[in-house]
Amino acid sequence: MGSQFAVGVDIGGSFIKAGLVDDAGALLSKSVRPTLPQRPADEIVADVATLISEVIEASPADRESIAGVGIGSPGPLSPTRGIIHRAANLPTFKNFPLRDRVAEGSGMPAVLVNDANAAGFAERWVGAGHGADNLVMFTLGTGIGSAVFVDGRVLSGGFENAGELGHMIIERNGRPCSCGQRGCLEQYASAANIVRRVSEAMRQGADSVLAKIAGAPEAITAKDVAQAVREGDSLAVEIWRDACAALATGCVNVLHAYNPRVIVLGGGLSGAGAVLLDAVRQSLQAQVWSLHDDLPEIVLAELGNDAGIIGAAGTMLQALANP
Amino acid sequence: MGSQFAVGVDIGGSFIKAGLVDDAGALLSKSVRPTLPQRPADEIVADVATLISEVIEASPADRESIAGVGIGSPGPLSPTRGIIHRAANLPTFKNFPLRDRVAEGSGMPAVLVNDANAAGFAERWVGAGHGADNLVMFTLGTGIGSAVFVDGRVLSGGFENAGELGHMIIERNGRPCSCGQRGCLEQYASAANIVRRVSEAMRQGADSVLAKIAGAPEAITAKDVAQAVREGDSLAVEIWRDACAALATGCVNVLHAYNPRVIVLGGGLSGAGAVLLDAVRQSLQAQVWSLHDDLPEIVLAELGNDAGIIGAAGTMLQALANP
Repeated sequence: MGSQFAVGVDIGGSFIKAGLVDDAGALLSKSVRPTLPQRPADEIVADVATLISEVIEASPADRESIAGVGIGSPGPLSPTRGIIHRAANLPTFKNFPLRDRVAEGSGMPAVLVNDANAAGFAERWVGAGHGADNLVMFTLGTGIGSAVFVDGRVLSGGFENAGELGHMIIERNGRPCSCGQRGCLEQYASAANIVRRVSEAMRQGADSVLAKIAGAPEAITAKDVAQAVREGDSLAVEIWRDACAALATGCVNVLHAYNPRVIVLGGGLSGAGAVLLDAVRQSLQAQVWSLHDDLPEIVLAELGNDAGIIGAAGTMLQALANP
Repeated sequence: MGSQFAVGVDIGGSFIKAGLVDDAGALLSKSVRPTLPQRPADEIVADVATLISEVIEASPADRESIAGVGIGSPGPLSPTRGIIHRAANLPTFKNFPLRDRVAEGSGMPAVLVNDANAAGFAERWVGAGHGADNLVMFTLGTGIGSAVFVDGRVLSGGFENAGELGHMIIERNGRPCSCGQRGCLEQYASAANIVRRVSEAMRQGADSVLAKIAGAPEAITAKDVAQAVREGDSLAVEIWRDACAALATGCVNVLHAYNPRVIVLGGGLSGAGAVLLDAVRQSLQAQVWSLHDDLPEIVLAELGNDAGIIGAAGTMLQALANP
């Protein structure tokens, strides 16, 4: 059997990305367009089809050697039915049969996968979690997504929505979350939350090197905060430590829930590197139980922004191999 | 093929229970001895072997139709290696090869299973969770144990210790737990915790009908507290509500972790019945997110104290069917 290829598509609130991926997980061509998410869903699907054609033409693959299209999308969604129930950043995708529309538009088989699961698939396949059968990945961005693999398979659950770990409650009656709950992990450890807390403190008069690094409080990014932490800025260090402690609490709960061998930290915040990884590892050691020696290894994601494309394509190739 | 039988053994800190179970999950005979857990492990194993002989003799089963012995025990333990790493209430079982010792002592094949997983197996097999492929069970006793089933299989994880949900953290920097962590679920919602909080309040002068129901604060049981709740006692109601809210927080986290169709509440505290179930259900509705309609059904366990025996035997029968 010759090489197989698949197209991976990663639909986000800002950009649609597509790429052609081979059966070793290598990304051979890539194309990107803005999502413009307020548009009718069919217009977005038409752009997806165009991107798929572009990456196929830009690659060395024959059309007949391409297995199909894997589509990664925010959810909640149903992989088995190929439907997006709703997605906060894609308001026109409400109970939308995205999988079948993309299959029609591209003339190829398609599968639909949660975007965090796609990224986790990629990291297990060719990234930081290579070969780990029991693995959890956090994607730390505006919110916190997650992917859970148990004995080599993605955990889906009775409603196909397992592993929404950004909404595990780590503080009873804690901060309100947009999901309707209180005390969700993502209210303590997401990139957006870190930025919000630093900005608020500065508006209330707190002194910080961030005034120099970023200028106005409105302009601060999580990357700026990480830089301020490296420079020893006391405001940034305090808020960063607290966020990393919250993330470590999340890792403790992941340990007790799934007993994974590896926890991968991905998403934009993971670009902070050692300043994130070291703080989470230390706080985990300080918080975790002493009854059993079952500490997972905490590692940084390796595939960056391409993980979603690679993992969506990999999910398509796997679906073909294990129908 | 004729009927198959297995012996189920449930080893606890207070009692060793054994029973003969048929392949429909019916308990045909049963025998019990005190554990006397300070004894050398080999003496305890000898009693297990005696109990096994007793329940076989007291049953209509031929010896050759008995598949083997399933042993449920507190952990952490390794089912694949048949070893108990350690168990808080069984101090002489340290890195002890219980499975093989029982197999030698009884002359039959044996499997080792976490006691909470045994109870969960039984409730899925012939109890409150009958037929649910995605199910989580909490056993609410002195501590809080749990069992997690994903797509019909027990969740074991990379270190064979997944689903220790009594030690999920629901309050950052919360109450200290004997496991070394802070804010563990079982510090808020176990039977022992409820009793401790009520007793402390009474010692500090709080008025309660429990003085009549139980007498001295030292004599109060969780059953007494449940009775006081039914009588509308304000101290008991306040602490009970808080414990049920903590348990509902645990259920929210279980929803996001595993997306089960059913959550079974078992263990001694579940004997409280509606006063537990209604409060947990109401608090879950109040706390849970509004983004997706994936609420599990919360139900009370049905098998009571025999669940451990039945599930251990069932685990043996399943191991035979799927080696």
